[in-house]
Amino acid sequence: MSFIATPQTMHFAEPLPLQSGASIRDYTLAYETYGTLNADRSNAVLVCHALNASHHVAGSYAGQPRSEGWWDNMIGPGKSVDTNQFFVIGVNNLGSCFGSTGPMHRHPDTGEVYGADFPVVTVEDWVDAQARLLDRLGITQLAAVMGGSLGGMQALSWTLQYPERMRHAVVVASAPNLTAENIAFNEVARRAIVTDPDFHGGHFYRHGVIPKRGLRIARMIGHITYLSDDVMNEKFGRQLREGMDLKYSTQDIEFQIESYLRYQGDKFSDYFDANTYLLITRALDYFDPARQHGGNLAQALAVARAKFLLVSFTTDWRFSPQRSREIVHALLENRRDVSYAEIDAPHGHDAFLLDDPRYMSVVRSYFDSVAKGLQGGQP
Amino acid sequence: MSFIATPQTMHFAEPLPLQSGASIRDYTLAYETYGTLNADRSNAVLVCHALNASHHVAGSYAGQPRSEGWWDNMIGPGKSVDTNQFFVIGVNNLGSCFGSTGPMHRHPDTGEVYGADFPVVTVEDWVDAQARLLDRLGITQLAAVMGGSLGGMQALSWTLQYPERMRHAVVVASAPNLTAENIAFNEVARRAIVTDPDFHGGHFYRHGVIPKRGLRIARMIGHITYLSDDVMNEKFGRQLREGMDLKYSTQDIEFQIESYLRYQGDKFSDYFDANTYLLITRALDYFDPARQHGGNLAQALAVARAKFLLVSFTTDWRFSPQRSREIVHALLENRRDVSYAEIDAPHGHDAFLLDDPRYMSVVRSYFDSVAKGLQGGQP
Repeated sequence: MSFIATPQTMHFAEPLPLQSGASIRDYTLAYETYGTLNADRSNAVLVCHALNASHHVAGSYAGQPRSEGWWDNMIGPGKSVDTNQFFVIGVNNLGSCFGSTGPMHRHPDTGEVYGADFPVVTVEDWVDAQARLLDRLGITQLAAVMGGSLGGMQALSWTLQYPERMRHAVVVASAPNLTAENIAFNEVARRAIVTDPDFHGGHFYRHGVIPKRGLRIARMIGHITYLSDDVMNEKFGRQLREGMDLKYSTQDIEFQIESYLRYQGDKFSDYFDANTYLLITRALDYFDPARQHGGNLAQALAVARAKFLLVSFTTDWRFSPQRSREIVHALLENRRDVSYAEIDAPHGHDAFLLDDPRYMSVVRSYFDSVAKGLQGGQP
Repeated sequence: MSFIATPQTMHFAEPLPLQSGASIRDYTLAYETYGTLNADRSNAVLVCHALNASHHVAGSYAGQPRSEGWWDNMIGPGKSVDTNQFFVIGVNNLGSCFGSTGPMHRHPDTGEVYGADFPVVTVEDWVDAQARLLDRLGITQLAAVMGGSLGGMQALSWTLQYPERMRHAVVVASAPNLTAENIAFNEVARRAIVTDPDFHGGHFYRHGVIPKRGLRIARMIGHITYLSDDVMNEKFGRQLREGMDLKYSTQDIEFQIESYLRYQGDKFSDYFDANTYLLITRALDYFDPARQHGGNLAQALAVARAKFLLVSFTTDWRFSPQRSREIVHALLENRRDVSYAEIDAPHGHDAFLLDDPRYMSVVRSYFDSVAKGLQGGQP
């Protein structure tokens, strides 16, 4: 059993200017904190989440078994990110469907549910919103910012937008931008949602329906890209459903992998918001700090001041080790202090959420050194 | 300009027993032939097609510019498979939507359009149907059977179902079965089609609609898997649509790759039948000659008598070189005569349809030796 986590919210009346030129005001961020902020407020670690996660990073909710946070194996008392030493903050991003203001909420001017009118938010916008939350929590400088996948992009962006506000950045299974293939998979998922007749141009709430078909397809595609070919073959291979022989049917489930994917799709469509899916995949597509520097990543990262840990996983074909190495090289060109671990794990992109002992121990060692920096005053 | 091709059809009144236990009667196969059958009927080459191709393998239709067959770069007078030497036969498979009897045709008993009631057909069933066509054409033994991708599976199956009926088998960019990941992509595509409200359980013809949304999604997914990550990055990368800056929109096209995929999806949904898509992807899923031999491929291939050429492409992640090597090893274990070429090509699975000079020359050399076998009497 994990420790008890308690979600909190904070309201922001002031408009937040967004990268698109639009702005959003009167919004709420859901967040959780674990551990205790020390006297000089120097032990805070901000954890940024990926596509379908939230501010519920670690711990469990009182009276709710199996409600562990998505990085509960990583973060907690005595864990790799030790909440006996660090004050850990998880924030749900703007546009999400898990507590912070998102497409299912009402526009403060019109009183109408945002739906498709929720402003497009970027990684940079999320970081700005997180920075305001830290301001309100009285945290000037983080011990570390960390995240995996899309969360890793936020961690990286933090070091560029607010280079003095963290001493360390931990970027796991991430990339300096999406490849054409990544964008392509996102686009198919978006088209599946948008062309679902129940999407109603993103205003399905008014019609009392949910574009479940599209969400299911989106999730099935996502799931395939999170897993490695190897782990799929090992877990499912060509196994038929238990006790079944071939049915010779085009619509029934024949293979275990089909059953698994349909289950994942159904589950997802029950809890995830379609507009949020569109927003978050777009934020992924857009992220590209080198873009303003003619594609020169080293130039883009020149402003970073943090020390870095990057971690990638050998079988991750969504955000391959090659992409992490691009970040490492660009940081080294800038003579930044960078540690890099390439973990030989079979699980594909999903590995960043799993309990690989080498992975956990790399992060533990890194945070041990971050903690030592705390004790010695300046890191 | 290519030579003129003329499609033909042949009707089969007798029932064809299918692997599922069902049968189909009163069906028609569309086919084309190029070149001249020699006096001893020994120079025939059967070409099997893949997912969205047809009997129109080479040449062009009279008065229709840009109507070249799908393997026109490979097959024709003076080409790698030289129709001055060989009598080449292309057959459209049962269940297709390009001329042979398929879901859009009427059941001979009921007079109703088959739709979803078209019997499930397998690679083995297609081979049986092709064998009957050869019977009617008076061809006892082929000089070679050849195909790429799903067509390669048919070529392989020919050597197991009718081991004495061909002297050579050319299996390009193929696999001894689908991996879990392959099945997974097929399943997502099928779910996209089947859950399209315009699918009507596969009887959409009666409703005067077509499940275009589902077909579009299916094709977009397919397209991603046909291309390599490298070629996508090279062709599209992160380029925005011409003259555009970021629009900050979740539904508009921002990146070139999105535009390309939408175009491919739209085009496909205009000409491809949804039930055919289901049938063909299922035939792919089911193919697994080792299944009846406890997964032992060498045992499954022990009956083969043909000489083999296998070709794979380094960046093909749908049917990777590893899968072709499995076939090569299993044949070598049976002391079969096997040539194998692994072509270093950037184009992914699509490479098998493209004009790589090394690829073309490997196939040319192989067919030169097949032709020499013809001249010397016995091969």
